[in-house]
Amino acid sequence: MKKIAILGSTGSIGTQALDIVRQHPDRFSVVSLAAGRNIQLLAEQAREFRPHLISVQTKELAEKIKHELPPHTKVMWGEEGIFATATHPDTDFVISAMVGSAGLAPTLAAIEAGKTIGLANKETLVTAGHIVMRKAKEHDVSVIPIDSEHSAIYQCLQGEDRAAVRRIILTASGGSFRDLTREQLADVTVEAALSHPNWSMGAKITIDSATMMNKGLEIIEAHWLFDLPYAKIDTILHKESIIHSMVEFTDRAVMAQLGTPDMRIPIQYALSYPERVELETEPLDLVKIAKLHFAAPDFERYPCLALAYEAGQKGGTMPAVLNGANEVAVARFLRGDIPFLAIEDTIAYTMGKHRVVVDPGLEDILEADRWARQVAEEY
Amino acid sequence: MKKIAILGSTGSIGTQALDIVRQHPDRFSVVSLAAGRNIQLLAEQAREFRPHLISVQTKELAEKIKHELPPHTKVMWGEEGIFATATHPDTDFVISAMVGSAGLAPTLAAIEAGKTIGLANKETLVTAGHIVMRKAKEHDVSVIPIDSEHSAIYQCLQGEDRAAVRRIILTASGGSFRDLTREQLADVTVEAALSHPNWSMGAKITIDSATMMNKGLEIIEAHWLFDLPYAKIDTILHKESIIHSMVEFTDRAVMAQLGTPDMRIPIQYALSYPERVELETEPLDLVKIAKLHFAAPDFERYPCLALAYEAGQKGGTMPAVLNGANEVAVARFLRGDIPFLAIEDTIAYTMGKHRVVVDPGLEDILEADRWARQVAEEY
Repeated sequence: MKKIAILGSTGSIGTQALDIVRQHPDRFSVVSLAAGRNIQLLAEQAREFRPHLISVQTKELAEKIKHELPPHTKVMWGEEGIFATATHPDTDFVISAMVGSAGLAPTLAAIEAGKTIGLANKETLVTAGHIVMRKAKEHDVSVIPIDSEHSAIYQCLQGEDRAAVRRIILTASGGSFRDLTREQLADVTVEAALSHPNWSMGAKITIDSATMMNKGLEIIEAHWLFDLPYAKIDTILHKESIIHSMVEFTDRAVMAQLGTPDMRIPIQYALSYPERVELETEPLDLVKIAKLHFAAPDFERYPCLALAYEAGQKGGTMPAVLNGANEVAVARFLRGDIPFLAIEDTIAYTMGKHRVVVDPGLEDILEADRWARQVAEEY
Repeated sequence: MKKIAILGSTGSIGTQALDIVRQHPDRFSVVSLAAGRNIQLLAEQAREFRPHLISVQTKELAEKIKHELPPHTKVMWGEEGIFATATHPDTDFVISAMVGSAGLAPTLAAIEAGKTIGLANKETLVTAGHIVMRKAKEHDVSVIPIDSEHSAIYQCLQGEDRAAVRRIILTASGGSFRDLTREQLADVTVEAALSHPNWSMGAKITIDSATMMNKGLEIIEAHWLFDLPYAKIDTILHKESIIHSMVEFTDRAVMAQLGTPDMRIPIQYALSYPERVELETEPLDLVKIAKLHFAAPDFERYPCLALAYEAGQKGGTMPAVLNGANEVAVARFLRGDIPFLAIEDTIAYTMGKHRVVVDPGLEDILEADRWARQVAEEY
């Protein structure tokens, strides 16, 4: 029986992880859940999965929810609540699925407490990969990715010698504007941007998909997760999103993981690893799909991709700046404040202004993030 | 240092295996080589790789070649020579790449002598899979496939739990006539049949590719190699032959191995297993390939595929009959004796006449093969 904590249980990853627990009550049980403000859903989850501990954002929310909980479920709040959820002595697996940089500190606490990490929070590795992976190594903790691309790479590496990896190839859908020219991109609307062709996702990640910054952030994550230099991390446009990513080995054999766009596959893989277990989902039907397409990513067409490589290679606080500036730029685009192509300009401008701190600590990273957000907001 | 014997060293697999040994003199050395009648090439191989032992088909050929060999290379001939090559005490890896049913007995001898087997000879598993795999288990010997499809499956299964395999999917190019209707197939010529779109192969296997009997034989091989029921072995048409085969797991994740059509990749994989080592070959360029196509195999269009499933499921001596009848039918087509569509009729007729021997011994299998060849010749 794997005993699970979920940081971000009411979000997309959290609810899907609970769906997997629901399908396998013999394998998984829920010990602790942390959410933000959606106390109605959290209360339902608590009644269904009967965790020992839940945590909400504020004391007020904790007061509200406590009468709706099963008798043995304790409620906590704020930072203390999240840390208690992440480090509960009964858990052995922590799903890190909080949104944004708030996920970093509790994930580090879970690593220090020796929990296996199922990582869905991008910021954790993008901004502090050197700290996270160093700590994971120190505490002999596995960090198992649960987004589809890194999970694919992780699966391709099973039973393989890491030294034989020639390169990894992250596949990218190219996003909702992949067929538009640079000129056409100048005038795209928020509504058009939010219709992603393959995955149903939140607004932020849908825009990141259209700029390919999502792939840029994944490149930086892959660098840390798989301990590979950037020269060994490539991307390829693959609009069907059926091949989730690939690994090329020194013998030129290429291993790939394919599947339908169901996030429960990588979530469950992380939870059940090193085993695989049944999942009730639509099987991949390549006959019906009939064709898979591939194309080279164009760095002029997708400058965010080039910016991400640059930030990754500069290292230090630069990836945190890339990420912070991107979050602000996307938010500004979403509220109609700047046009689509100004997203990349905002990030490039902010990166250009930044003085990199080498081997930064957590406080340096949070400071760089704050600084970048301010610069990007004022650009 | 892996010490290698090659049964069939002057054939396509044998020469490519030697090319790999040539690229990695620090990893592989050649202990013994068996060939048939091509003594000129064998002598060259002996001078380059300096084996302890070579074997040729007849005493006359042995007499001819012995003056062209390095001083310490011993020459033998006939069945005794092949067995000595396969069981040489200094070898630890035997590549079984002789053509036809003659490869079976020396492969079994190598297994009994505890050698790891790199298996390129189809007949070994098609006709006597139950004996071969039972013996391999008894002697704790690995049988590593070195054709591209089974090697792909083998690679996809690395680090995986066999119990989690939902099905394997063998990819098939569909052969040189894949775009013709049944009516058009009635009149195809030998010349047209021999132009395979992806791989440069011998005449027999090119025809087997056009009838899809090659895939049928691979299904039976896969049944034995991976210990899977026929219901868990599927095929899919994939004309580019880039995905070499796939495994679908219970969680609906699909693992695939991709590569250029270079047989040295699976040959080297078998030789270097469980490691992967550098191979000088053209890398896979999916951007250049741009599209991969998939379609369902049509059993009416490819009745040999249905015959192979039937033979596999009936078991006993039936797969040997399928194989023997197919060899004769293809030979008759190649010499202009019967039309293309009579290949399948000949096999179906021969199978229909056969009385299956359950759990056959080697002698039963050879007898069924002889019988099938005679019936197919006279049809």
